[in-house]
Amino acid sequence: MSSHATVEAQVSDRQLVETRRGEIVRAAVKLFSERGYYSTTIQSIAREAGISVGLVYQYFREKDDLLYLSLKDVLETYEREIPQALEGVTHPLERLRVAIRTYCRVVDRLRAATVLTYRSTKSLRPERRRYIMDGETRTNRLLEGCLRECVAEGFMHPVNGPLLVYQYVHFAHAWALKRWAFKRRYTLESYVREGFKLLVDPFLTAKGRRVRR
Amino acid sequence: MSSHATVEAQVSDRQLVETRRGEIVRAAVKLFSERGYYSTTIQSIAREAGISVGLVYQYFREKDDLLYLSLKDVLETYEREIPQALEGVTHPLERLRVAIRTYCRVVDRLRAATVLTYRSTKSLRPERRRYIMDGETRTNRLLEGCLRECVAEGFMHPVNGPLLVYQYVHFAHAWALKRWAFKRRYTLESYVREGFKLLVDPFLTAKGRRVRR
Repeated sequence: MSSHATVEAQVSDRQLVETRRGEIVRAAVKLFSERGYYSTTIQSIAREAGISVGLVYQYFREKDDLLYLSLKDVLETYEREIPQALEGVTHPLERLRVAIRTYCRVVDRLRAATVLTYRSTKSLRPERRRYIMDGETRTNRLLEGCLRECVAEGFMHPVNGPLLVYQYVHFAHAWALKRWAFKRRYTLESYVREGFKLLVDPFLTAKGRRVRR
Repeated sequence: MSSHATVEAQVSDRQLVETRRGEIVRAAVKLFSERGYYSTTIQSIAREAGISVGLVYQYFREKDDLLYLSLKDVLETYEREIPQALEGVTHPLERLRVAIRTYCRVVDRLRAATVLTYRSTKSLRPERRRYIMDGETRTNRLLEGCLRECVAEGFMHPVNGPLLVYQYVHFAHAWALKRWAFKRRYTLESYVREGFKLLVDPFLTAKGRRVRR
């Protein structure tokens, strides 16, 4: 990880840093989402996390650190959980579906932080913003790999992979961004199933359609 | 239009209000996009528009007015230009393609304001936020009407209309939101063509596929 991607803490116990930071970041995400990045103070984050302002400053130097770690956390969750979910899944079509479903589940769990990515990435310092964009590109490649495999093994027709992957990603993000439109109509699982009908099934070859879901 | 949707001005000449407001809103969108909503002052907007702060206050009461009119402008442009573009277009499939293409062209022209919609809708007062969401729903219905017509006349297979329309909308918005990823690979027109291959063509019936593009 390059230096700009590191956030320094004054505490040396790694485990403690992780735990405390997790608590503080969760409080920050909640407030950034409710009030916006600029209107949220370190004071209010400390209050929300139930700790002192001085303690926050032992783990973070400035508000930009908090925003950066919040957004990085979402991306790292995709990069950790999608490969985990794919372990032991061998059929290319099943791998694609598992990857999309897992992406959607992470969005569901980290809804506030997902919305925050859209609202506040631009508030980050430029080199950190770059790092967040690169993280998104890496996650997209995970999905693209699954898609390419489906095409290579003749289960799907050739497609514009990068663009279809963006549709997968937007479909997943929409679960957080358009919550007001979707929450009464779908559960997460029914939303994902409807998504497959629009974004996977239409591209199946005859061989792909024969594969049992 | 209900009262919360109206922004009061101290100037009575309607034409002048429209022109001046247009200038001020464009300056505001530019600065909100570059610096974020909260970091932008009325002073800096006046400077950007090349007019005095006092003059801005003759057309707007507060910053929320400016943000609201910026976002409303995007939605009203869809609602005006999509029906205009559809005038005289009779074939359902062509109507659907024209509607999507027009949506994308509006996004292309109002890129900064489109991004602002994602970044700052939540900064609006609740009743105005509601009005913006309703505007989005109305625009979606325009597209959904075109889609339904294609299905009703047997050119497309039955689909989950509202959800596929959201994919159209995200596809269009992505042209603004993911500019960094797309600008080197596509022109607007080639982007739209690739979009049709993913979001329209796969749903065509045999009858739909026989229609000349």
